[in-house]
Parts: sequence; C-alpha cells; structure tokens
Amino acid sequence: MRVLAIDPGFDRLGVAVLERGEGRERLMYSACLGSQRGTPLPERLHELGVALAALFKTHQPTHLAIETLFFNKNVKTAIDVAQARGMVLYLARAAGAIVCEYSPQAVKIAVTGYGKSDKASMTAMVRRLLPEAPTLAQDDEYDAIAVGITCLAHVGRGR
Amino acid sequence: MRVLAIDPGFDRLGVAVLERGEGRERLMYSACLGSQRGTPLPERLHELGVALAALFKTHQPTHLAIETLFFNKNVKTAIDVAQARGMVLYLARAAGAIVCEYSPQAVKIAVTGYGKSDKASMTAMVRRLLPEAPTLAQDDEYDAIAVGITCLAHVGRGR
Repeated sequence: MRVLAIDPGFDRLGVAVLERGEGRERLMYSACLGSQRGTPLPERLHELGVALAALFKTHQPTHLAIETLFFNKNVKTAIDVAQARGMVLYLARAAGAIVCEYSPQAVKIAVTGYGKSDKASMTAMVRRLLPEAPTLAQDDEYDAIAVGITCLAHVGRGR
Repeated sequence: MRVLAIDPGFDRLGVAVLERGEGRERLMYSACLGSQRGTPLPERLHELGVALAALFKTHQPTHLAIETLFFNKNVKTAIDVAQARGMVLYLARAAGAIVCEYSPQAVKIAVTGYGKSDKASMTAMVRRLLPEAPTLAQDDEYDAIAVGITCLAHVGRGR
C-alpha cells in the first residue's frame, strides 16, 4: 500500500507519498507545488497537472488521499480549490489509484486523537509520527502528510 | 479553427463541436454526457473524463470554450460544477487546445444580441443559427452549442 496524499490549491498544492513500512508509516516524499500567479487559471491547472501526473508515474500509488471539501470560508477560494480538486481526482483515477476522502475532522482525529486540534499541534504530531518529515515546510505540505497518515490508518484498519 | 464547447456538470455535461464553414458556423457534433448517479464522485469524474478525452482525440479542437463560473446559486452545485470544470480545463490544455472563457452574459449577447435572454429565446436562436442543431435536446447541450457560437464569434473577430 502506497498513498499519494494531496492538499489541493492553486497557489500552493501540498503532496506527500507515504507507505506502511515495518511497524510504522514512512514518508517517502513530500513537497509543496506552486503555479505561476497572474497566469490564467487553465495554465496554472495544466502546470500543476503535469507535475502531479509525473508523481503518479514515479511513485505508482495504490491510493489517493484527499480531504472532503468545506464551504464555510471564502466561496471564491472554495471554487478554486474545487477546480484543482476535480483535476486531482481525475488524474488519480486515470492512474488507477483508489480515491479515499476524509473530513478535516477525521484527519485531526487520526493524527492527534482530537478533532479540533490547531495547526501547531498537527504539525508537531506529524513530525513526531514521521521523524523524516521536513522540519520547516509550508502548511500545505504538512496538511498533505496528515491526510496521508489518515489514509494509512483507516485503510490499514479496513475502513 | 474548431471549437469544443462544454457546459460542465456531473448529472449532465453538454458538449458541442463547431467549425467556421463557408460563410457560416457549422455544428459538427453535440451531445449531453451523463455519469452514473449514486456512484462516488471520483468515478463519475473519471467516466466523464474518459469520454471527453476521446472527444478531444476524435475532433482535435483548436479551442475549448466554456463559461466562467457563477456563484450566485446553490454553493454545493457550484462546487460540483467547479470540480468538473477543473478536469475539463486540464484535459483541454493537455490536448493542446486554447481555452476561451465567456461570462453567461457574453454568451447571451453573442447568440441573441441581448444579455438577459431567457432559455427559450436562446434555444430558438441556436436552432436558427445552426439548422443542423438537434430539435429536441437537453438544455445542457444547447448551452454548450451557445458557448461554441460565442467562441467562434469572438475569436473570428480577434477577441
């Protein structure tokens, strides 16, 4: 089982590749992809899509993990995230990966055991669970790793 | 110049292929694609994406025409349309097509000359401009044809 986890967006798109190793989860790769601000949205989607397609090819994930969409903030942002997310889901299925979706709360519970953890607690716990995680990365990268941890926990338990 | 025009959605996704023929626009193909209700969203996106990728391959469009997103209705619907739209934009650029976006008002003006036309006037005018258009089709198919007409008009005029 190998998970490609994604925190979708245009300005920053977090990605992480995780595996269940011997006894514990291992982080194989993580990064924060960006696309050129100020260029038209189709170009930005394409730039991100090409990079993601390469990641699917390189890492051959069996699962794609991603958060469910939330609509409680800025609608414009939600719409942009949704457009990136649609492309991600398509690429995942085109690459033969099983798509696993988790609510933000489920991710917090999987990582810290508490559904209302703040960003700092989440980041601290991600680093504790995965010592190979980068020590200084952007939130989007930690968010992707957290979704990946969630997927390994859920699928490992048959959920 | 050949345009693939799309009205994005999950339940129904309207598609149309138009060309500028001798003296007037010609409709080469139009349809309303659907995806299986009740199946998970990633499956539905994949089903639609595979069908769209085949259309890009068959018709080799130089342009992809699509409406800009509007957020004034149901947010859930807007989010779903946005996810389908993101996939469409990615597929278009992956196929080398130039993406052209038009506001709903611009489409109405291009087809009827009036920015607040209702559905019935739009459909009537689409059939008048393109006698080869189907006489009984779903709104989404006519919507796609209308966006295609808009693209031919704008790009033809260098806009």
